[in-house]
Amino acid sequence: MAGFVAVHTGAGNFIDETLYQNVCKEACAQSVSVLSAGGSALDACERAIVVLENSTATNAGIGSNLNWNRKVECDACIMDGASLQFGACSGVIDVKNPISLARHLCERQSKLLSFGRIPPMVLAGPGASAYAREIGLPMVPPEHMISVTAAKKYDYYRAQIDQYEERSREKMSPLDTVGAVCVDAEGSIVAGCSSGGLMLKLSGRVGQAATYGAGVWAMMNETTSMSAASCTTGNGEYLMKTLFAKELVDDLISCNCPITSQHLTYKQKLLESPFLSKIDTVLAGSLSVIYNTASGDGDLLWAHTTNSMCIGYMSTRQKKPKFVISKLPQNVTFGTKPVINGHHFKLM
Amino acid sequence: MAGFVAVHTGAGNFIDETLYQNVCKEACAQSVSVLSAGGSALDACERAIVVLENSTATNAGIGSNLNWNRKVECDACIMDGASLQFGACSGVIDVKNPISLARHLCERQSKLLSFGRIPPMVLAGPGASAYAREIGLPMVPPEHMISVTAAKKYDYYRAQIDQYEERSREKMSPLDTVGAVCVDAEGSIVAGCSSGGLMLKLSGRVGQAATYGAGVWAMMNETTSMSAASCTTGNGEYLMKTLFAKELVDDLISCNCPITSQHLTYKQKLLESPFLSKIDTVLAGSLSVIYNTASGDGDLLWAHTTNSMCIGYMSTRQKKPKFVISKLPQNVTFGTKPVINGHHFKLM
Repeated sequence: MAGFVAVHTGAGNFIDETLYQNVCKEACAQSVSVLSAGGSALDACERAIVVLENSTATNAGIGSNLNWNRKVECDACIMDGASLQFGACSGVIDVKNPISLARHLCERQSKLLSFGRIPPMVLAGPGASAYAREIGLPMVPPEHMISVTAAKKYDYYRAQIDQYEERSREKMSPLDTVGAVCVDAEGSIVAGCSSGGLMLKLSGRVGQAATYGAGVWAMMNETTSMSAASCTTGNGEYLMKTLFAKELVDDLISCNCPITSQHLTYKQKLLESPFLSKIDTVLAGSLSVIYNTASGDGDLLWAHTTNSMCIGYMSTRQKKPKFVISKLPQNVTFGTKPVINGHHFKLM
Repeated sequence: MAGFVAVHTGAGNFIDETLYQNVCKEACAQSVSVLSAGGSALDACERAIVVLENSTATNAGIGSNLNWNRKVECDACIMDGASLQFGACSGVIDVKNPISLARHLCERQSKLLSFGRIPPMVLAGPGASAYAREIGLPMVPPEHMISVTAAKKYDYYRAQIDQYEERSREKMSPLDTVGAVCVDAEGSIVAGCSSGGLMLKLSGRVGQAATYGAGVWAMMNETTSMSAASCTTGNGEYLMKTLFAKELVDDLISCNCPITSQHLTYKQKLLESPFLSKIDTVLAGSLSVIYNTASGDGDLLWAHTTNSMCIGYMSTRQKKPKFVISKLPQNVTFGTKPVINGHHFKLM
């Protein structure tokens, strides 16, 4: 079975690219093997993100940024463009793979419970963990989610804050929500993302990776045979306020030129958005795919306003995954303009 | 100072209207007194919802529906059309007035924290409670949130489910998220809502009353002098999938006829939405306000696909609040078509 997958490990200003190359490639390879074996785009997207979560190098799952209380609290979400179903979880501390809980909630949406009760679309906090345990997902003790590196970073920044609470100009990076977009030959399209959220975030903070319309979007237009999906990374609250993943896909699915479309979406719906009128610097990145089911032509697009972004991609026709480090041109100030680039692929 | 407020206690199929009359009127009266004393639309909206939350008759705050674990877990959100800021909390078990936490998060959005950290827009679970305690909001022991009536209803339905898990045709009602919309003479406009969520919901479920775009929306268009706000109630997941509050306001703020606009939004964006393509019965209600800052003319609009909805409203020019019980025409099957009605008001 044919299919295509792309992953990213976040858009940031000070990213260690070498750390991300192996995990991006591994996520692509495993996801493509799921597609080749006849798995759905949903299966393949989940698998890609599970690989990213399991790496301690990424800010997702094990090894995520620590929150204000020195704990890992994860968000994840996934959307299926074929069914338009969405599932998300927020603030889970002991679910090994938050994306698997999101995927379960996404699929579960299609059936009613007894007495006409509607299954939940988003679960947060201890209730989310309890549900994950009930459905048999792998659980880990919360302290096992903490990596040595994450603990060191926390201790460094927390000490700074305690000493210099007022020194608000120094900005923390990185903002590395991970994500994946997947398409199969039938045009089934899925986007997913997963994040430990901002370092030192308040416990209980729901980020864009658990917010409908913000972290991921995916849809198919049967009339035009086009399907599109996006996953986002960056300043979570800004992506939430602008429902940025939804805007990217809404514009992309009806556009003539994907690159122009992405430029306009970044400009009009994010950087000049009335929802962010007082904000000068908007850190954001996205990975999008647009696919024509009739012709088998697809475009992968990455975009970011941060200094850099790491992307991996692979189709079932390729033997090896590709890895790209995208950089903002040196004359552009981060957070003010996007750099946009892409890769054409064909599945038929 | 001039202003207008409207509240609702939910749209349902089997509502005890007499229970709701007093609390609707009281919420309007207190809210108008805030406006008259020079309070902002944000102050007035919060006050109205605090009154609704404090009543054990409503499914918000104290006396809310119990979740699967026999506990009250509340969601609330508020949006300020002037600043376009939004705040929400989800799954709080011991915050006396969840709307006050949402309001705090909404206002807090305007300032950065140290190191350029962005304040959270949504907090869920124990982290939300901890933050509420830190900022000094009134807290109560979780068991004080449980009313005798809510406990009885829970015990009845839970026993039914334990005995007849398969009997999925019997539907539970009511769906009574409460809400309020407020406008002041300058056209500052605010919508808020608060909910205990579905009876027997899974612990941790995030409902539309904590979801951006779904529970409330508010915005001003300075070019046209129009401002609009909506709050929604009904099948939470369906309101979330369709981002229904946002759609209502987006359509309303640019329309020629508010009643026609609401009809179209219900038809195209909810009942015939591609996001709900397999759903026959969509229970929903909304309370919206549209106001022209230049002329001082406003319209309050209520709409629901449920059998009934209770609404209260009052302007600073009126001595007493009005109470309306809106009913679906008898020849209409609930969940298939909306009834829409309204009231014109003038603030200048």
